[in-house]
Amino acid sequence: VSLTPEPIRWRDGALELLDQRCLPHAEQWLRCERVEDVAEAIETLAVRGAPAIGIAAAYGLALAARGPSADAGAVIDAARRLQATRPTAVNLAWALEEGRRALAEGRDLLELACALHEAQREADRALSSYGAALFAAGDRVLTHCNAGVLATGGSGTALGVIGAAFAAGRVAHVWACETRPLLQGARLTAWELQRAGIPFALVTDSSAGLLMARGLVDRIVVGADRIAANGDVANKVGTYTLAVLAARHGIGFYVAAPLSTVDAATATGDDIPLERRSADEVLAFAGERVAPAGAGAENWAFDVTPAALVHGIVTEAGVLEPPLDRAIARTRGGALRSAPA
Amino acid sequence: VSLTPEPIRWRDGALELLDQRCLPHAEQWLRCERVEDVAEAIETLAVRGAPAIGIAAAYGLALAARGPSADAGAVIDAARRLQATRPTAVNLAWALEEGRRALAEGRDLLELACALHEAQREADRALSSYGAALFAAGDRVLTHCNAGVLATGGSGTALGVIGAAFAAGRVAHVWACETRPLLQGARLTAWELQRAGIPFALVTDSSAGLLMARGLVDRIVVGADRIAANGDVANKVGTYTLAVLAARHGIGFYVAAPLSTVDAATATGDDIPLERRSADEVLAFAGERVAPAGAGAENWAFDVTPAALVHGIVTEAGVLEPPLDRAIARTRGGALRSAPA
Repeated sequence: VSLTPEPIRWRDGALELLDQRCLPHAEQWLRCERVEDVAEAIETLAVRGAPAIGIAAAYGLALAARGPSADAGAVIDAARRLQATRPTAVNLAWALEEGRRALAEGRDLLELACALHEAQREADRALSSYGAALFAAGDRVLTHCNAGVLATGGSGTALGVIGAAFAAGRVAHVWACETRPLLQGARLTAWELQRAGIPFALVTDSSAGLLMARGLVDRIVVGADRIAANGDVANKVGTYTLAVLAARHGIGFYVAAPLSTVDAATATGDDIPLERRSADEVLAFAGERVAPAGAGAENWAFDVTPAALVHGIVTEAGVLEPPLDRAIARTRGGALRSAPA
Repeated sequence: VSLTPEPIRWRDGALELLDQRCLPHAEQWLRCERVEDVAEAIETLAVRGAPAIGIAAAYGLALAARGPSADAGAVIDAARRLQATRPTAVNLAWALEEGRRALAEGRDLLELACALHEAQREADRALSSYGAALFAAGDRVLTHCNAGVLATGGSGTALGVIGAAFAAGRVAHVWACETRPLLQGARLTAWELQRAGIPFALVTDSSAGLLMARGLVDRIVVGADRIAANGDVANKVGTYTLAVLAARHGIGFYVAAPLSTVDAATATGDDIPLERRSADEVLAFAGERVAPAGAGAENWAFDVTPAALVHGIVTEAGVLEPPLDRAIARTRGGALRSAPA
């Protein structure tokens, strides 16, 4: 067992990212010396996962503050550029807002990035421990996409919970949905589970219904890219379908996310911008064109799961239970966080 | 517009199949001169789709009856070999049973195969016309896998219905689920829709929930591999999930299939054998490994949709409406068909 390396690190004055586009076949580090490098790494998914792109963006601001033409304007421009990379994960907006505030207060932006990174590690540890308590011995748990070390820079949200539950002897098996179109489940979650020594099998996303109908799933845990004030959850496309199936089969459906993913300024899931990505991601598979020339595709990267289908949100402040709107309002993070710019 | 060529033909004493493994990139014909060629073509999905494999098997018996060691025993052996290729589609068992009966009655097996093929063409035409009447102008319809010309040897079941509804001005747009792991939607349905000039977009299987939640789907039509006496439907894995989502969103969910897909000898969906295929279909694509070495996968090819989620079964005898068990009992095909051996 060789655990997943931390995928985000500051080294010799630059941000280094474990390039997730190359996994699981190659462990390649991408060195980002300029803000533009970080922005492109986020856009092309060299780094991905809501918490991880927030932390990467914070390091991006630190690069701007240290650059040859470093001044407040350069940092503000960098925040604007980084904000434009991806629309759905609120952690990005949140980290950039933290950066703007630190800039206004004259604090060091590298120190801020390191502090946000460390806070994420702590949040992951805490929420993993709270989440593990939800499991029962022998549970077979299903997850979607990748909400692990690679997605947070800490020990992971959904996979952090699963790892802690496994360590406590409460997870017998993990079903990892492959997660089309970019196969984060097959490429990244499988890689992490394998390194952690947790028994698992990959399945196509379409198999989840059959698994539940056959009684092979005891619990579902996923991450989140943004949680609205009412508890609606934006996450990787396909999450909503899993929640609908879980409701039909009476299976516990949990979301694991740090409070930085809760966006008090977004009232409901209807207000969350859902990223649409290139049709090419659907038309091709692992670089090989699948569909006939001239065929088109729609590629929404996220969907929204209504709060009513979520049995709990596992955070570093504990498990938020329904009614989620009230539970969210009670969290300091949700109640006090200012609206992202 | 150049319509899909008929994928099954008898030519110069052999069965020729449009090799579906090579589509959409190449139109290559596979010539089967021996029963074993046909069996392998079915196993490797050179020909696929419940009605199409039934017809291919019938031609396979004709090959056995014409072979160098042709006698009744050779035909019975051929039927046994062909039956062992794939377990779920009942059309295969049904066509082989028709062959055994014809053999016992001294009829010509090539004539039988041609008759079954022609009956499928007629069934597709009739059910397409019945199905088209279910649509309203401007409908956006979603389908899964491929239930078109390629899957039946006629004009298709689900895609036959969609084509007839489009011709009648009642389909504005088709959502084609790509259908992992073998991407029959992206490779085959897209190819057929494009040739038919029907506007469509491919989506990942996981996107169906989002599309329905956003009000972008008016109707769902899929094919079937086996329909139990109570109306439970075995079809490509993922179908059950679509039916659950359709129920949640009040969207009409229809199954299009010839009566030869109805299996009166199978009481419920629990009794339908669901094929499990190689994990490699999930772990790799086009020969390229996606998952890390050592990762495992489960690959059920089909799932079961309970009758309660099906709004109608579109057959050549009309649209069977709930309660489906009674509607099926009333069809001559369902009531009179003998149990497959």
